Amino acid sequence: MATQPPRLASYDDSTLPNLPSHTKTLFDAKTAQNLTFEQIAHHLNRSEVAVAAIFYGQATASPEDVDKLSSLLNIPRDSLAAQLLSGFPDRGRAGPMPPVEPLIYRLYEIVQNYGYAFKAVMNEKFGDGIMSAICFNSKVEKEVDEAGAEWVVITLRGKW
Amino acid sequence: MATQPPRLASYDDSTLPNLPSHTKTLFDAKTAQNLTFEQIAHHLNRSEVAVAAIFYGQATASPEDVDKLSSLLNIPRDSLAAQLLSGFPDRGRAGPMPPVEPLIYRLYEIVQNYGYAFKAVMNEKFGDGIMSAICFNSKVEKEVDEAGAEWVVITLRGKW
Amino acid sequence: MATQPPRLASYDDSTLPNLPSHTKTLFDAKTAQNLTFEQIAHHLNRSEVAVAAIFYGQATASPEDVDKLSSLLNIPRDSLAAQLLSGFPDRGRAGPMPPVEPLIYRLYEIVQNYGYAFKAVMNEKFGDGIMSAICFNSKVEKEVDEAGAEWVVITLRGKW
Amino acid sequence: MATQPPRLASYDDSTLPNLPSHTKTLFDAKTAQNLTFEQIAHHLNRSEVAVAAIFYGQATASPEDVDKLSSLLNIPRDSLAAQLLSGFPDRGRAGPMPPVEPLIYRLYEIVQNYGYAFKAVMNEKFGDGIMSAICFNSKVEKEVDEAGAEWVVITLRGKW
Amino acid sequence: MATQPPRLASYDDSTLPNLPSHTKTLFDAKTAQNLTFEQIAHHLNRSEVAVAAIFYGQATASPEDVDKLSSLLNIPRDSLAAQLLSGFPDRGRAGPMPPVEPLIYRLYEIVQNYGYAFKAVMNEKFGDGIMSAICFNSKVEKEVDEAGAEWVVITLRGKW
Amino acid sequence: MATQPPRLASYDDSTLPNLPSHTKTLFDAKTAQNLTFEQIAHHLNRSEVAVAAIFYGQATASPEDVDKLSSLLNIPRDSLAAQLLSGFPDRGRAGPMPPVEPLIYRLYEIVQNYGYAFKAVMNEKFGDGIMSAICFNSKVEKEVDEAGAEWVVITLRGKW
Amino acid sequence: MATQPPRLASYDDSTLPNLPSHTKTLFDAKTAQNLTFEQIAHHLNRSEVAVAAIFYGQATASPEDVDKLSSLLNIPRDSLAAQLLSGFPDRGRAGPMPPVEPLIYRLYEIVQNYGYAFKAVMNEKFGDGIMSAICFNSKVEKEVDEAGAEWVVITLRGKW
Amino acid sequence: MATQPPRLASYDDSTLPNLPSHTKTLFDAKTAQNLTFEQIAHHLNRSEVAVAAIFYGQATASPEDVDKLSSLLNIPRDSLAAQLLSGFPDRGRAGPMPPVEPLIYRLYEIVQNYGYAFKAVMNEKFGDGIMSAICFNSKVEKEVDEAGAEWVVITLRGKW
Amino acid sequence: MATQPPRLASYDDSTLPNLPSHTKTLFDAKTAQNLTFEQIAHHLNRSEVAVAAIFYGQATASPEDVDKLSSLLNIPRDSLAAQLLSGFPDRGRAGPMPPVEPLIYRLYEIVQNYGYAFKAVMNEKFGDGIMSAICFNSKVEKEVDEAGAEWVVITLRGKW
Amino acid sequence: MATQPPRLASYDDSTLPNLPSHTKTLFDAKTAQNLTFEQIAHHLNRSEVAVAAIFYGQATASPEDVDKLSSLLNIPRDSLAAQLLSGFPDRGRAGPMPPVEPLIYRLYEIVQNYGYAFKAVMNEKFGDGIMSAICFNSKVEKEVDEAGAEWVVITLRGKW
Repeated sequence: MATQPPRLASYDDSTLPNLPSHTKTLFDAKTAQNLTFEQIAHHLNRSEVAVAAIFYGQATASPEDVDKLSSLLNIPRDSLAAQLLSGFPDRGRAGPMPPVEPLIYRLYEIVQNYGYAFKAVMNEKFGDGIMSAICFNSKVEKEVDEAGAEWVVITLRGKW
Repeated sequence: MATQPPRLASYDDSTLPNLPSHTKTLFDAKTAQNLTFEQIAHHLNRSEVAVAAIFYGQATASPEDVDKLSSLLNIPRDSLAAQLLSGFPDRGRAGPMPPVEPLIYRLYEIVQNYGYAFKAVMNEKFGDGIMSAICFNSKVEKEVDEAGAEWVVITLRGKW
Repeated sequence: MATQPPRLASYDDSTLPNLPSHTKTLFDAKTAQNLTFEQIAHHLNRSEVAVAAIFYGQATASPEDVDKLSSLLNIPRDSLAAQLLSGFPDRGRAGPMPPVEPLIYRLYEIVQNYGYAFKAVMNEKFGDGIMSAICFNSKVEKEVDEAGAEWVVITLRGKW
Repeated sequence: MATQPPRLASYDDSTLPNLPSHTKTLFDAKTAQNLTFEQIAHHLNRSEVAVAAIFYGQATASPEDVDKLSSLLNIPRDSLAAQLLSGFPDRGRAGPMPPVEPLIYRLYEIVQNYGYAFKAVMNEKFGDGIMSAICFNSKVEKEVDEAGAEWVVITLRGKW
Repeated sequence: MATQPPRLASYDDSTLPNLPSHTKTLFDAKTAQNLTFEQIAHHLNRSEVAVAAIFYGQATASPEDVDKLSSLLNIPRDSLAAQLLSGFPDRGRAGPMPPVEPLIYRLYEIVQNYGYAFKAVMNEKFGDGIMSAICFNSKVEKEVDEAGAEWVVITLRGKW
Repeated sequence: MATQPPRLASYDDSTLPNLPSHTKTLFDAKTAQNLTFEQIAHHLNRSEVAVAAIFYGQATASPEDVDKLSSLLNIPRDSLAAQLLSGFPDRGRAGPMPPVEPLIYRLYEIVQNYGYAFKAVMNEKFGDGIMSAICFNSKVEKEVDEAGAEWVVITLRGKW
Repeated sequence: MATQPPRLASYDDSTLPNLPSHTKTLFDAKTAQNLTFEQIAHHLNRSEVAVAAIFYGQATASPEDVDKLSSLLNIPRDSLAAQLLSGFPDRGRAGPMPPVEPLIYRLYEIVQNYGYAFKAVMNEKFGDGIMSAICFNSKVEKEVDEAGAEWVVITLRGKW
Repeated sequence: MATQPPRLASYDDSTLPNLPSHTKTLFDAKTAQNLTFEQIAHHLNRSEVAVAAIFYGQATASPEDVDKLSSLLNIPRDSLAAQLLSGFPDRGRAGPMPPVEPLIYRLYEIVQNYGYAFKAVMNEKFGDGIMSAICFNSKVEKEVDEAGAEWVVITLRGKW
Repeated sequence: MATQPPRLASYDDSTLPNLPSHTKTLFDAKTAQNLTFEQIAHHLNRSEVAVAAIFYGQATASPEDVDKLSSLLNIPRDSLAAQLLSGFPDRGRAGPMPPVEPLIYRLYEIVQNYGYAFKAVMNEKFGDGIMSAICFNSKVEKEVDEAGAEWVVITLRGKW
Repeated sequence: MATQPPRLASYDDSTLPNLPSHTKTLFDAKTAQNLTFEQIAHHLNRSEVAVAAIFYGQATASPEDVDKLSSLLNIPRDSLAAQLLSGFPDRGRAGPMPPVEPLIYRLYEIVQNYGYAFKAVMNEKFGDGIMSAICFNSKVEKEVDEAGAEWVVITLRGKW
C-alpha cells in the first residue's frame, strides 16, 4: 500500500445541508491540492484543530488566514473572503447531539461519564467558576507507547 | 479570608438518587477528613480525575485503592470493599445529557462544536478508527499566563 | 487591520430554510450597502434589536419602516412591501431550542439557571402575574470597565 | 386588603426534590421572619437576583453572606455554613426546560424569538465572541409608565 | 342509579408528586363535604374553572377565597392560608405534555390542528399581537341539542 | 395610516413544506383578491375558523365550498376540486408541538395549565367521557371592555 | 407441569408509582383468590379487556361492578368503592410511549406501520371522520389454525 | 350530492418525501382509474388493509399482485415491477410517532391506554410470549347499530 | 491479587427502582453464595445470558428454575416462587435508551451503524420477514487470538 | 415462482438523503448486475455484513475492495475511488434511533431487554472493560431446525 497517497479527511455529501457553503469550497480545494490539515496548519501557523474548525464553520478566519488559504488552496481571494469574512460563525450545527458518529460519540461519552469528576477537580483547583469553551484552544497529538500502540492525546486549554 | 479552609467538592443532595451509595460514603468521609482530591490522589498514586471518577462510580477501584482509601478516609475496610469491590461500575448515570451544569456544559459544547474538527484531524493522523473512551486517562492542570489569567488544561489520552 | 471594513452580521446559508424569504433579501442588501444594524436602526429610529428582529422575521415592520428600509437598502419598495407587509410574523422558527449556537445558548443558560430567581423577585415586586414577551422592547449596550474589559448590557423591558 | 402582609415568594413542595437542601432551610426561615428578597438583599448588600439565586442553589454564597444570612434569618451559623459553604453549586437543575412555568417561559420565549437578533447586534458591536453567563450579574426593576402601567425592566450584564 | 350520589372529581394518587400539597388538602375536604365544583364556585362567586385551577395550583386564591373555602370545606383557616397564601403559583406542572389523558389530549389536539387557523383569524381581527393566557378567564357550559346530544361549550376569553 | 389596506393573513414561505399544496393556491388567491377570512366565511356561510382550517388542510371542504371558493377567489373550479376534493385531510402537520409561535403557544399553555381543571369540571358536569375535537366547531370574536381594551373570545364547542 | 396452577397476570413492583392505588388492591386480591381475568369478566358480565382496564385505572367501574368485585375478590365494599367510585379515571399513565414492553410494542408497531393504511381504508368506507377510542370496546380471542399454531385475534370496535 | 363520485383516499403532497416512490405512482393511477381500495382488494383477492399497506410501502407485493395492479391500474408492468419487486420494504417511515393525524392518534391512544390490559389478558390466555406484528393480518369492517350509528370494527390477527 | 475472590456482577443501588423486586433478592443471594453466572447457569442447565435475564426480570423462570435457584442460592422456595412465578415479565425497563452505560452502548451502536447492513443481508438470505427477539436465545463466549488479545463473541439466534 | 429471479436488497428512495452518494452508485450497479451480497462478499473475500456496511457508508473500503467492486459491478474505477477512498466514513446516520424498521427494531429490542444481562455476563468473564464496536466483525448465517423452521444466527465478535 506504499504507493497509496495519504487518505484525506473530507465531507460526506449528506452532511452538507447542515454546514456553511464554504465547507464544500474549502474541502474540494484541499482534496484537489492533496493537502493534509497538518500541512495547512503549518502554512497558517495555527493548530490543526483550529484550521479544521474553520473548515466546518466553527471558528472565525482572520483576513491573514484567508490570504494564506487562498494562495495555498488556489481559491480566488475575493470569493473566499466573501464566504469567510462576511458574517460571523453560526456555531454548533455540524452534527446531531448525541453524536451518532462513533469517534465523536467517544468524546461525548467522556463528558457524560467524567463530567462531574472534571468539575469536582476543577472546582477544588480553581474555586467556583467556569472554563471557557470559546476563549479556548486545543491540539491533537499522536503518542506511541513502548508496546507500539498508538494513543491519541487531546489537549483542551480554556481560560478560567 | 486567609483563615478560611479550602472549599472542597461535595455532592448535592438532589443528585444522590442517580449515584451509587458509595458516593455519599466517600464524600462524607472526605469532608470529615478535610481532604482535597489532590491529596487523595497523591496518597493513591492515581490522577485526581481517576479518583473523582471512583467517587462518582465511573471507574473501578482496585483492592489497593480500597485499602488506601479506607485508611486515609477512616472508613472500615470491609464496608468500603463491599461498596467498591462488589459489582462493576454502571457508568454514565451521574447527570443529564445535555448537561445542565454550566461547567460540564462547556465540555459538551466543545464536543458539539469541535467534534468534526477533532475527527478530521484524528482521521488524517491515525486513519479510520476510534479513540477509546475506556482505555483512557486524563488529567487537569492549572496554568497562569503572563497576564495573570488562569487557564485550565485538560489532557485526554485514549488508545487508538 | 485598520483598513479592514467592519465585519457585518449576515446569515448562514444553512439556516435560510427556517427563515422567511425576506431575511435573505434584507441581509443581501445590507451587505451590499455595507451598513451596520446601528446605522439602520438610527435611520429607522428604532432599537437595533428591533431592526434585527425584523430581519429575522420576529417583528412586524410598519409601512414607515418599509419605506425607510427600501430607500436605505436600495430595494424596490413594492417588492419589499410584498414581503414585509403581507401576512403576520410566524415567530420562533429561527433556530433550534435548546440553542446550539454558543452565544445564544448563554442567554438560554441564564433562563435555565436564574429563571426561578427572576420569578421570585418579580413576584415579590409585582405580585402574581407575568411579564410580557410581546409587549416588550430591548436594547444591547457596550460598557467598558475600569480594567478595560468589555461588558454586554442587555436590557429587557416588558409590560407586567 | 391593607392589613394583608406582603405576599412572599416561597417554594412549591413538589419542586423540592430538584433543589439543594438549603433551599428549604432558607425559604422556611425567610417566611418565618417575614422578609422580602429586597430586605435580605439590602442586608447583604447584593442584588435581589443574586440573593434569590443563592436560595435556589445557582450561586455561591461567600462566608460573609452566610454570616449575614445566619443572623438575619436566625439560622445557626454552623448548620447554614455546612449547607452553603461545603461543595460548589450544581447549577441548572431548578426546573425543566423548556420551562412550564409561564413567567419563566416568557424569558425563554425571548431567547427563542430574539436570540439571533441579539447575536447579530452583539457581533456587530463586539466582534466574534461570547457574553458570559457566569461572570454575570443582573437586576430587576419596576417602572410605571405615564398611563400607570407597570413594566418590568431586567438588566443582564455579562463580560464579553 | 337514582340514589347514587353524584360522582365528584378527585385526584389520582400517582399524580400527587407533581402537585402542590394543598391539592390533596382541598380535594380530601371537597370529597368529605360531598361538594361539586359548581357548588364551591357558587359559594366563592368565581367560575368553576377558576376554582378547579386553584385546587390544582394553577391560580392564586385571594384571602377572601381562602376565608370562604375554609368555612365551606371545614379546613382550619390558618393552615389553609399557609398553603394557599404563601408563595406564588408555580404553574404548568400538573401533567405531562403532550397530555396522555384523552380528555386533555382533545384540547391539545385542537391547538395542534387549529392553531394556525386561530392565529390567522385573530391576526386579521386584531392585527399583530397576542392573546393573553394569564389575563384570562374561561368557563365550561353544557348544551343539549335538539337530538338530545350533549355538547361541551368552552369559552376562553383573554386580553389582546 | 388610513389609506393602508387591511393586513391579511398569509403563509410564511418556510412553512409551506409542511402544508398541502392547496394552502399556497388558496392564500395566493386570497391575497390577490384582497379578501379577509371574515369576507370569505360570509360568502361560504361558515365560521371563519372553519374556513381558515380548510386553507391549512385541517378541515374538509364540501363541493359547495369548492364552488364558492372557486368563484370568489377566481380559481378554476377543476383545479381547485382536484386539490380540495381528492383525498382526505391529513391533519395535524401545520406546525411543531410545543408551538414555537407565541400566539399559538398561548393556547397550548392554556391546555398545559388548565387541562386538569377543565377535565375536573367537565367530568362533574358530564360524567366520565370525552369532548370530541372532531365533531367540533369554534369561533373567534372580539370584545371591547369598558376601558377600551380588546379581548379575544374563543368558543370551542365539541360533542360529548 | 399438570399440577402447576395457571399463571396469573399481576403487576411489577416498579410500575406501581405510575398506577392508581386500586391497581395494587385489586391485583393482590385477584392473586389471593387465584382468579383469571376470564373468570372475573364472566362474573361481571363484561369483556376481559374492560375488566383489566379497570384494574389498570383506564376504565370506570360502575357501582354494580364494584359490588361484584367486592364479593368475588373479598374486598370490603366501602374501601373498594372509595378507590373506584370517587374521582374519574386519569388515563394514559400506565406505561411509557413508545412502549418498552415487547408485547405492547407490537401493538404500537402495528399503528406505526399500518396507521395510514387503516386511515385510507376507513376514510373510503366512512368518509372524513374519526373512530372513537373512548366510545369503544374490544376483545381478545384465541384461534388455533390447522397446523396447531395459536393466533391472537384482537377486535377493536369504536363508534365513527 | 348523489352525483358526486365517491371520495377516494390519496396522498398529501407534503408527506411524499417520507414515502417510497411507488406510493405516488399507485395513488395517481388509482385516482385516474377512480377505484376504491375495496375494488382493488377484490381484484387482488387480498384484504383492503394489505392493499393499502402495499401502497404505503409497508407490505411486500407478490409478482401476482404486481401483475394484477399493473392491468387494473394501467401502469406498465415493468416499471411497476421495478418499483415494487426490487428491494424489500423499509417499513415504519410513513408518519411521525406519536401520530399527529387524529384518526391514527386514536389507534395510538388505544395502545397507550389499553396496552397493559391487552397484555394481561393475552398473557393469561397464551402464557408468556408475544403476538407477531409481522406474521399478521387485519381487516376493517363497518357495522351499523340499531340506532343507525356507524361503528368501525378493526380485527387484528397475529401469530402468537 | 491471587487471593482476591473473583469479582461478581451485582446491581447498582440507583437502578433498583426500575427493576422488579426479585432482582435484589437474587443478586444479594448470589453475592452471599459467591457464585458466578457461569456456575448458576451450569446448575440450571441454561445459558448464562438467560440466567442473567431472569435476574433482571427480562425472562420467565420455569418452576424447575425456581426449584434450582432456591436450593442453590438458599432462598426459601415459596418466597422465591411468589416473586418469580406470579405475573409475567414486564420487559424493557432495566435501563434508559439510548444506553448511557458504555458497554451496553457499544451494542446499541452496532445496531445503529450496522442495522441496515444486517437487514439487507438477512432479506437476501431469508426474503421479507423478521428475526424474532422473543423466540430467541444467545450466548457470550471468550476467544483469545494468537496475539493474546481477548475477543467477546456474542451469538444471537432468533427464529425467522 | 421458480423462474422468479432472487429478490435483491436495494435502497428506498426516501432514505437516500441520509446516505453517502456512493450508496446509490453501488446499489444501482448491484441491481443492474443482479448480484447478491453473498456473491459480492465471495468476490471480495470479506463477510457479507462488511460488504453491506460499505454500501451504507458504515465501513471503509480498502483500495483492493475498490478494485474488485469496480470490475465486478462495472463501475469506472476512478469515479468509485473518488467516492469510496476520499474522506473517512461518517458513521451512524443511516436511519433513526429508535429504529422504525421492524427488523432493525428487533435488534434494538435485544439491546434494550438483554443489555444488562450481556453486561453482567461479560463483566464476570472479562472483568471491567468494554467490547469494541469498531474493532469488530460479524456474520449472518441461516440455520434450519429439525422442524424445518429457519433461524437467523448473528455472530458479533468484538475485541475486549
